[in-house]
Amino acid sequence: MVKDKLIYNGNEKQVFSTDDPRQVIFRYKDVATAFHGVKRARFTGKGVVDNQISAILLGYLNSHGVETHYVQILNDREQLCRKIEIIPLEVTYHNRIAGTLAARLGLEDGFKPANTIIDLTLNDDDLDDPLINHDQAVALGLATYEELDVMYDIARRAGRLLTDLLGKAGLELVDAKFEFGRAADTGAIIISDELSPDTCRIWDAETGERLDKDRFRLDLGDVQYSYGVVLDKLKAIMETDQ
Amino acid sequence: MVKDKLIYNGNEKQVFSTDDPRQVIFRYKDVATAFHGVKRARFTGKGVVDNQISAILLGYLNSHGVETHYVQILNDREQLCRKIEIIPLEVTYHNRIAGTLAARLGLEDGFKPANTIIDLTLNDDDLDDPLINHDQAVALGLATYEELDVMYDIARRAGRLLTDLLGKAGLELVDAKFEFGRAADTGAIIISDELSPDTCRIWDAETGERLDKDRFRLDLGDVQYSYGVVLDKLKAIMETDQ
Repeated sequence: MVKDKLIYNGNEKQVFSTDDPRQVIFRYKDVATAFHGVKRARFTGKGVVDNQISAILLGYLNSHGVETHYVQILNDREQLCRKIEIIPLEVTYHNRIAGTLAARLGLEDGFKPANTIIDLTLNDDDLDDPLINHDQAVALGLATYEELDVMYDIARRAGRLLTDLLGKAGLELVDAKFEFGRAADTGAIIISDELSPDTCRIWDAETGERLDKDRFRLDLGDVQYSYGVVLDKLKAIMETDQ
Repeated sequence: MVKDKLIYNGNEKQVFSTDDPRQVIFRYKDVATAFHGVKRARFTGKGVVDNQISAILLGYLNSHGVETHYVQILNDREQLCRKIEIIPLEVTYHNRIAGTLAARLGLEDGFKPANTIIDLTLNDDDLDDPLINHDQAVALGLATYEELDVMYDIARRAGRLLTDLLGKAGLELVDAKFEFGRAADTGAIIISDELSPDTCRIWDAETGERLDKDRFRLDLGDVQYSYGVVLDKLKAIMETDQ
């Protein structure tokens, strides 16, 4: 497998083609962005940590019956992934209601409902990533009803698996944002993108301390340190799990 | 049945209790409001027309197997209704995507999708009536999953019935916003509030001319005249339907 051309250059990640048309390489940068790129900063080593966390979480899902695009970690900043056709929707699994969703519903940040919430947003910065529903997503031609049902089912199973795994590591999964694509190799709908404190809200289970991108969004400091805590705790539990 | 106390005094309607605890009287004012009451104007006679249109549309649903709160028209401005416990959610049936939904999804106003769209919004002016989903509504304790399914089913049936009726009258139902409540008499979930050009977008089927509250929102003029056209066309078709 040979790294080829840069095919996507995002704020936080780059994607390269390879000599295998069914595989790509994800490369994690040291940049954090928030509020649709309006807020932006560099944190040395953050990309290395994100790459490792994402490899652990995506790999965990793969090995527990939830297909993702992750194949294997290649080096500090890069991982090999299955190529996908992007579905521009995000499915978020919420154990608690935090951030924009809390503001939207008039709830205290971190409100814990009796039920699990899964919602669908349109991945479109210009429209401010609006919440949409199945009927609307179908009307826009983004997915079929059947595909949306598959995405919801995967998000529910993945959310439960990650909640359990993080719980064992002394961490609480507050929410997790899943992106999806149609795999170039099999056509199946699989989880794509990354799973890290950039895309999941993760709190210390005992202290409630935030260990995710909210540290950057809310100017709480210790961004790299907190991401490192998540990685260390995950590594510890993965070792005992072997 | 004796009219008793004013129990709700809204921008466009008043509700009075009666000597029957299971019934109330709705009274339609001549006021139109838009954008959460920011825009407001008086149109002489509008309440009389709304009362009649609402009586026709709600009565039509009642007689076609969709329960509403409507009992009977009492006079120019008043109708007798079953008392309900309000569920603060709105379920909107869309044959076309118009207004705020079009802006939200980045579509041309009036976009006609291949599927019918039903969506759920939280009836809360302070929060700007946000779109929400089943999981979120349950988390807020507003309804159970079973009740939401009932509301969606009713909205789908009512939307189809109104689309057919208006179609026969030479009108196109663009969208219809349904409110719901738990009936004081039977406990059943039924359609409440009004159905009129204030809560439904209605276009002339041939010319596409807007005959609803968008004439007020968008300063197109002829508000009363357009509402009157809707009423006249409905009356004509109801007479031939008898």
